[in-house]
Amino acid sequence: MEKLKKYVSVKDEDHFYHQGAVELLIFNFLLILTILTIWLFKNHRFRFLHETGGAMLYGLVMGLIIRYVTKSPDVESGTVYECEELKSGPSTLLINITNQVYEYQYKREISHHNVNGHQGNAMLQKQMTFDPSIFFNILLPPIIFHAGYSLKKRHFFRNLGSILTYAFLGTAISCIVIGSISIYSPKENPNAFDAAAFFQSVGNFLGIFAGSFAMGSSYAVVTALLTKFTKLCEFPMLETGLFFLLSWSAFLSAEAAGLTGIVAVLFCGVTQAHYTYNNLSPDSKMRTKQLFEFMNFLAENVIFCYMGLALFTFQNHIFNPLFIFGALVAIFVARASNIYPLSFLLNLGRKQKIPRTFQHMMMFSGLRGAIAFALAIRDTESQPKQMMFSTALLMVFFTVWVFGGGTTAMLTWLQIRVGVDPDEDLKARAASQSAPNLDKNTTKAESAWLFRIWYGFDHKYLKPLLTHTGPPLTSTLPEWCDPVARLLTSPRAYGDQLKDGDSVYIINNDELTENYESSAHIAVPAQDSTASTQATGKEDIQEGDLGLGGYKLQLQHTAGQPQKNSLA
Amino acid sequence: MEKLKKYVSVKDEDHFYHQGAVELLIFNFLLILTILTIWLFKNHRFRFLHETGGAMLYGLVMGLIIRYVTKSPDVESGTVYECEELKSGPSTLLINITNQVYEYQYKREISHHNVNGHQGNAMLQKQMTFDPSIFFNILLPPIIFHAGYSLKKRHFFRNLGSILTYAFLGTAISCIVIGSISIYSPKENPNAFDAAAFFQSVGNFLGIFAGSFAMGSSYAVVTALLTKFTKLCEFPMLETGLFFLLSWSAFLSAEAAGLTGIVAVLFCGVTQAHYTYNNLSPDSKMRTKQLFEFMNFLAENVIFCYMGLALFTFQNHIFNPLFIFGALVAIFVARASNIYPLSFLLNLGRKQKIPRTFQHMMMFSGLRGAIAFALAIRDTESQPKQMMFSTALLMVFFTVWVFGGGTTAMLTWLQIRVGVDPDEDLKARAASQSAPNLDKNTTKAESAWLFRIWYGFDHKYLKPLLTHTGPPLTSTLPEWCDPVARLLTSPRAYGDQLKDGDSVYIINNDELTENYESSAHIAVPAQDSTASTQATGKEDIQEGDLGLGGYKLQLQHTAGQPQKNSLA
Repeated sequence: MEKLKKYVSVKDEDHFYHQGAVELLIFNFLLILTILTIWLFKNHRFRFLHETGGAMLYGLVMGLIIRYVTKSPDVESGTVYECEELKSGPSTLLINITNQVYEYQYKREISHHNVNGHQGNAMLQKQMTFDPSIFFNILLPPIIFHAGYSLKKRHFFRNLGSILTYAFLGTAISCIVIGSISIYSPKENPNAFDAAAFFQSVGNFLGIFAGSFAMGSSYAVVTALLTKFTKLCEFPMLETGLFFLLSWSAFLSAEAAGLTGIVAVLFCGVTQAHYTYNNLSPDSKMRTKQLFEFMNFLAENVIFCYMGLALFTFQNHIFNPLFIFGALVAIFVARASNIYPLSFLLNLGRKQKIPRTFQHMMMFSGLRGAIAFALAIRDTESQPKQMMFSTALLMVFFTVWVFGGGTTAMLTWLQIRVGVDPDEDLKARAASQSAPNLDKNTTKAESAWLFRIWYGFDHKYLKPLLTHTGPPLTSTLPEWCDPVARLLTSPRAYGDQLKDGDSVYIINNDELTENYESSAHIAVPAQDSTASTQATGKEDIQEGDLGLGGYKLQLQHTAGQPQKNSLA
Repeated sequence: MEKLKKYVSVKDEDHFYHQGAVELLIFNFLLILTILTIWLFKNHRFRFLHETGGAMLYGLVMGLIIRYVTKSPDVESGTVYECEELKSGPSTLLINITNQVYEYQYKREISHHNVNGHQGNAMLQKQMTFDPSIFFNILLPPIIFHAGYSLKKRHFFRNLGSILTYAFLGTAISCIVIGSISIYSPKENPNAFDAAAFFQSVGNFLGIFAGSFAMGSSYAVVTALLTKFTKLCEFPMLETGLFFLLSWSAFLSAEAAGLTGIVAVLFCGVTQAHYTYNNLSPDSKMRTKQLFEFMNFLAENVIFCYMGLALFTFQNHIFNPLFIFGALVAIFVARASNIYPLSFLLNLGRKQKIPRTFQHMMMFSGLRGAIAFALAIRDTESQPKQMMFSTALLMVFFTVWVFGGGTTAMLTWLQIRVGVDPDEDLKARAASQSAPNLDKNTTKAESAWLFRIWYGFDHKYLKPLLTHTGPPLTSTLPEWCDPVARLLTSPRAYGDQLKDGDSVYIINNDELTENYESSAHIAVPAQDSTASTQATGKEDIQEGDLGLGGYKLQLQHTAGQPQKNSLA
């Protein structure tokens, strides 16, 4: 028989629904304030606080008000019940009170100092009913999907090699450095380096990454096929709905299958933009763009408001100054040992080097945002995890306010021009130098070899299969596939053979399109060993982190530019 | 000291987040299926099952699968704890298990027969974590707002008198009839009619209605002023965001203040469409329309899917055949004693009568849908409320499938033409009858007197204040208000004096616009006693219920039409 002992306060609250409305209303007001502030900032060209920084600030103020100004409602004679037989908290508890059974649902673990000082303010308590899984499953996917869907493919594919290097090798270096700095932590288990465990982790990582990638792109492929082979485009609302639901399902399926939804939905977004977008009705093209833009905007601001709020209203903060300082040092050391050495190595193989100023800027862009927060809040049930959460929260505040706020100043100081299309700039300079004919071979070589392989496959097989464009499959597949090829090729593709918008990813000047078009038809297959000889390429630097709060810098890198700047 | 006794099963579940993803995924799949089905139906012009009926059907099938096919996971040694000291379930329970305090949150009351047969399927249990307040605060507002925002104002205002009669008097009659039929119920308290209580309820109703109306329109007025006096329209995303958040806040504020959010957000939608819409940038006009259209579509289908699911997965159904039958009879008797007598009375004052066929159709359109469900699921904590919920659910199924599915057949049988603009029709017939000049006085008298009063005030004061259109306030306000009037009038209004799109609400033929324009300037003030002499008007019949599942009929009523039909 379990025994229950009276212990501490329990609050009783009747008006569940009014309470729910009040909570949502608080968020609405915070967001309205944020929007008006953004407008004021934009109107007055004030750039030292980014909109997300503003959202956090308002959340912070509201958190302070909720914590210290609102009157704590009468706390009823509260009770902590003691239960000796159970070893851990079950997810559901049935309790018989005066012959009526009530169901209770597990919410969280409470640290002891909080139990003792438990000052039940109804608002504070309810605040945390903003279930962490809402962040993760509902607010995060649109942000990441939008990043993929609105990705500037041209810049992305041109710099594929460098981006992948920073993303994989860079993240691995960061992990190792941060991990090593934590072995200084007061934790037990100072194990020696375990090679087997290391390779197992690498294997796990690659497996999960590949699985998530496959999951995300499969959903996009299904969407592309559905929009290609049905006449759904006659009903833009249904089309948009299907597009939205299948894209979201990519995230949820990956999570449900134990993969990572973030990777899945990112690549789903990229693939949707690359294939499905072409099949949509003009109405749906606009609807999906605007819908995801809007959802991204809203979700991002909700998360940043909530972060501000959470600093004062989350009840289980554990601030450990040593851990916070150590973590802050660790992420910067890790970033430095990732950016500078990798840039050095990449520059060995690049014709157009990544200049020092850009490397400093990348160092400075190490912001933490929505993803870091969503990952940290996902599980705050044990005390080490609560400490992680508090630390991550402070890290977001620090990086967004200090680095985010200083971005404009830093760009000016490093003399980096932003918001200029490198192609336009290149053309303009080519014209002014009266050298209209750039060396064609240089231009061809500018394409990353990885992309050239991919492009051939995509152009010959995937585009014709998944969209109405590209060369007909009947001309690219072997002859014995003809019946299937005929079935799968859109009638529209036969007239389209020579048009392909993607050629711009490879070449720089529109004048050279015909030059590339001929080379596309002799595109190297994946196994061709000569492909690796074209490994150098002109590359732009892209923002490295996603969901870092809307800092969308379009850094520009063109040959000769840095030198010009350094003289100015 | 409270005692806990072992009683029945408690389930432990680790993977909260995966579980959450699986639940959302199930809904996504149901919605995807629904969308594909809608498309198939539209494609094959199949009209005997409406899309919302289809959504319910899929939900039902999924509910069956979850209930009978999925394997119930291992149920741990479960426990119902007994607690003698508490009188009712507190909202939060703190439990000390092996020196660690866990917090539990109140979920619901469980009826005894369910406790005894408690077969804890994790899926079933988690299903109900789809918090009812989500329906009410998140899914319902966009549906109702959309109804208001996309309301055909022309039809609405022309028939204001009849609509208000059906809405207020009709609802009151229905309430009384349903209430009387329930005094036959096996409940206690057969009180005699209490006149004081009756008038108090009427007073309460009017007070809450007026308060909600004021709340809803205030938010719209604030939005109109913000969009008029700032240059927010330069940033369509911010504008759309503000519009969205303020409109939602109307609902939430009303709920938080103890008013009714449904009324608030409906009138907020109407007011936003009437004023704010004019101030929006062209981009935002489209964005807001499409956003709310999409949200309405999604929310409606989620609710109908969930209804299907709830029939098999809600664990506390109480099906009382007598109550269900009684309720079904009651709503039909109530509807009959509302439609027919009121139509008779209205027809006494109408030049163009509401024909019998239309009355039958209104009788047949008594569908229950999202609102009925959201209201019923809002509170299922006690057993009578669970019985109400189960009954309401069956009522929705019955009315949506039987009446909804039979709508097309019924319209054909009653020979009612749909989807025809009455004005166009009138013009066409006027032309064919070679009687181009309809009697001007008749046309003027066709406008409802209530609307004429309103129109004068709106045209002279509200439109110039809240939008960029209408006559300048300097010409409509008394002279001593000039400084304020000058400040509040948009510079654009001075050129706009003679243009006002609203004139179409009052007159029927474009040729007569100039005739109305002159009469608008001598518009009767609210106190003018002659206004009531113009009480007759041409009226269209509008759908009476909101949120009934997307049955948007545009019934048409033009003079002479019914007679023609009855001869056909």
